[in-house]
Amino acid sequence: MSSKEKILKTINYAIEKSLPGNSVKETLSRMKLDGNIYLLAVGKAAWRMAKAAYEILQERIIKGIVITKYNHSAGKISHSIEIYEAGHPYPDENSLKATQKALNMVEKLREDDILLFLVSGGGSALFEYPLEGVTLEDIVRITKELMKRGANIYELNTVRKHLSAVKGGRFAKTVFPARIIALVLSDVLGDKPDFIASGTVYPDSTTSDEALEILKRYGIDINPPVKRAILIETPKFVDNSEHYIIASVKTACMAAKEMAEKLGYNTLLLSTQIQGEAREVAKVIAAILKDIRENDIPVKKPAVVIAGGETTVTVRGTGKGGRNQELALSLAIEIEDIDGITFASVGTDGTDGPTDAAGGIVDGNTTKTLKSAGLDPKGFLENNDSYHALKKVDALIITGPTGTNVNDLMIGFVE
Amino acid sequence: MSSKEKILKTINYAIEKSLPGNSVKETLSRMKLDGNIYLLAVGKAAWRMAKAAYEILQERIIKGIVITKYNHSAGKISHSIEIYEAGHPYPDENSLKATQKALNMVEKLREDDILLFLVSGGGSALFEYPLEGVTLEDIVRITKELMKRGANIYELNTVRKHLSAVKGGRFAKTVFPARIIALVLSDVLGDKPDFIASGTVYPDSTTSDEALEILKRYGIDINPPVKRAILIETPKFVDNSEHYIIASVKTACMAAKEMAEKLGYNTLLLSTQIQGEAREVAKVIAAILKDIRENDIPVKKPAVVIAGGETTVTVRGTGKGGRNQELALSLAIEIEDIDGITFASVGTDGTDGPTDAAGGIVDGNTTKTLKSAGLDPKGFLENNDSYHALKKVDALIITGPTGTNVNDLMIGFVE
Repeated sequence: MSSKEKILKTINYAIEKSLPGNSVKETLSRMKLDGNIYLLAVGKAAWRMAKAAYEILQERIIKGIVITKYNHSAGKISHSIEIYEAGHPYPDENSLKATQKALNMVEKLREDDILLFLVSGGGSALFEYPLEGVTLEDIVRITKELMKRGANIYELNTVRKHLSAVKGGRFAKTVFPARIIALVLSDVLGDKPDFIASGTVYPDSTTSDEALEILKRYGIDINPPVKRAILIETPKFVDNSEHYIIASVKTACMAAKEMAEKLGYNTLLLSTQIQGEAREVAKVIAAILKDIRENDIPVKKPAVVIAGGETTVTVRGTGKGGRNQELALSLAIEIEDIDGITFASVGTDGTDGPTDAAGGIVDGNTTKTLKSAGLDPKGFLENNDSYHALKKVDALIITGPTGTNVNDLMIGFVE
Repeated sequence: MSSKEKILKTINYAIEKSLPGNSVKETLSRMKLDGNIYLLAVGKAAWRMAKAAYEILQERIIKGIVITKYNHSAGKISHSIEIYEAGHPYPDENSLKATQKALNMVEKLREDDILLFLVSGGGSALFEYPLEGVTLEDIVRITKELMKRGANIYELNTVRKHLSAVKGGRFAKTVFPARIIALVLSDVLGDKPDFIASGTVYPDSTTSDEALEILKRYGIDINPPVKRAILIETPKFVDNSEHYIIASVKTACMAAKEMAEKLGYNTLLLSTQIQGEAREVAKVIAAILKDIRENDIPVKKPAVVIAGGETTVTVRGTGKGGRNQELALSLAIEIEDIDGITFASVGTDGTDGPTDAAGGIVDGNTTKTLKSAGLDPKGFLENNDSYHALKKVDALIITGPTGTNVNDLMIGFVE
């Protein structure tokens, strides 16, 4: 098997192990669930997760609601499960209507009841209901302005939690006295429970004062009813919920590590929360791969370096690409002419930017082949045109939709 | 001892272990040198290295020549050692004059003679003599144009070697039949012998055809005498030289690792050849430190992550700083509010950009303290003003000139 085949085998295994259907089923099979089960699934993978849950629990699900993104459901699951589609990345009227249905369902639950809460990426927008005095427009406007002015995700969530009737642990209070079992397919780096679906079922560590301070810092005006809503503190204590990360980029990374070891390699799982500009992250990973090749630092070759995370691309050119393809192309430039290194970066959902590829796979010959064809690899990178560069040398990875989304996986083989 | 004190202790130890004086002396003490010894020292640390060699070998040095950068020598070493200063980063007439003196000295050497060749950063410009048909102006113009058009260091050196009478192994041929013992203080990532001082005493792996192709690729015109010179092939076989890296960033990294282990930490020496935009490299290192803190990935805490290399800064703002300070400030933003992580980045020569600092040291409180003082850490970073941000919170590392230069050292402590 060539290094390229080994990487693709490793990636396939990692994605397979991160599919929510399997892990929902596995997790539910291991659990002892006594009591009446109600189901709420929110997020981009909500339909698949609900379907998997139904396959295990069948008619034990008394009532269920699925809230997913437009065009993300695939037909009826059972007569007891209602399916709604709504707005993403910003909530819309349908988000509110569907969430209202969910609130109606859970308000009636009793102590012995169980709410099986299936959460995946996109849940923050799809599952939303404003506090009294706050409108949908307020939420969308404030969110957009905070993002435009460079607020980070922590600041954004601190504010959003204080505008919402379901975030920051409030949803758990509505479900009380019933118990919530949340199964989470995480696309949040570091799997922070406070961050996943904006902490709907988790005690909130942020305060009204902080939320107001953030709005002030970014110069965002709010009217008196919104201010009154923000001043209502979020729950600091939630004891009726437990959450399980059924899969995350860590799952994918650990599976990749397992496969690489099975293939006979030493491994280094670098980090499960890689961030940064794709082309620069590539240089750091290249430095590590080269030092393994030359000095057995930090691990002895043959070795596989694995990383998970989500890089960014600052678009300056007019080309076509995605963060994984750009990372791969940049890394190819760094390892030009070096033997024994093969590297791939892929989006575990099978998509990477506005392209039909999931990512790219490169080695020391990639840019040489481009140059032999009279093409300039750096020119393609400068123009953010990684897709066309990689396509020309058959270095795209094309998987089609994989059915999961646990962020990106980067894998380097050093012989 | 606080984490901050531990980092500074680790950095001091690493720099001390990388001083060329000590390692020249140690290396020479271990060597058995039979025969008449001639000395040639080139580079920014040439004077210090020659002085250290003289302290060990004394009057056994029959004749010596030091070629260093302007204002980088510090007085007479002995009556037998001539000292020259010349141009850097581009060679000038004084580079050629001094190199001619060195050529005159080594041409007369016999089989039993030894040339002790002490090499440090800057040697490529300071030690230069054009091939017949090539002028100093040709070398400077072609070098500058290649750099301006984005040629990488490999391409640059391929061309330079084919214009020079001393590079690409040619100097070793001039010294023949005498033996060359090269002691190298390396500031080249990966310590490639082919790259250090443009491979003066190492067989060349590049060809005339490649050199011409590179000039064509970047659209650089050359006249017929230059073309004739380039067509003379460089030596592909050199058997009268041996080289020893007496110190490099790897030395500094290994020393840091040793001290961190002595202090009771698990260690990860990430890479000795880190490259990339400083603020983005910071994000990758932060991701690793955070994953150690949260998940013991890739090593169990308490742990120290060590990396060596040379990052870059694309200057967009008008502030003051250096690549190490910018890396430290960017990392501080990434770890805001996280306990148990302390990080420093320093230039081992004691300088970092046009500042009086060697680098910066930060933790989860650094940006909070800045914000409490009404200052915006991201604003400072955007303005490339890391110096003033770090200065305000007492986070600069100021060492003064250290006497060595083996590139940059990055160290993160995770408790």
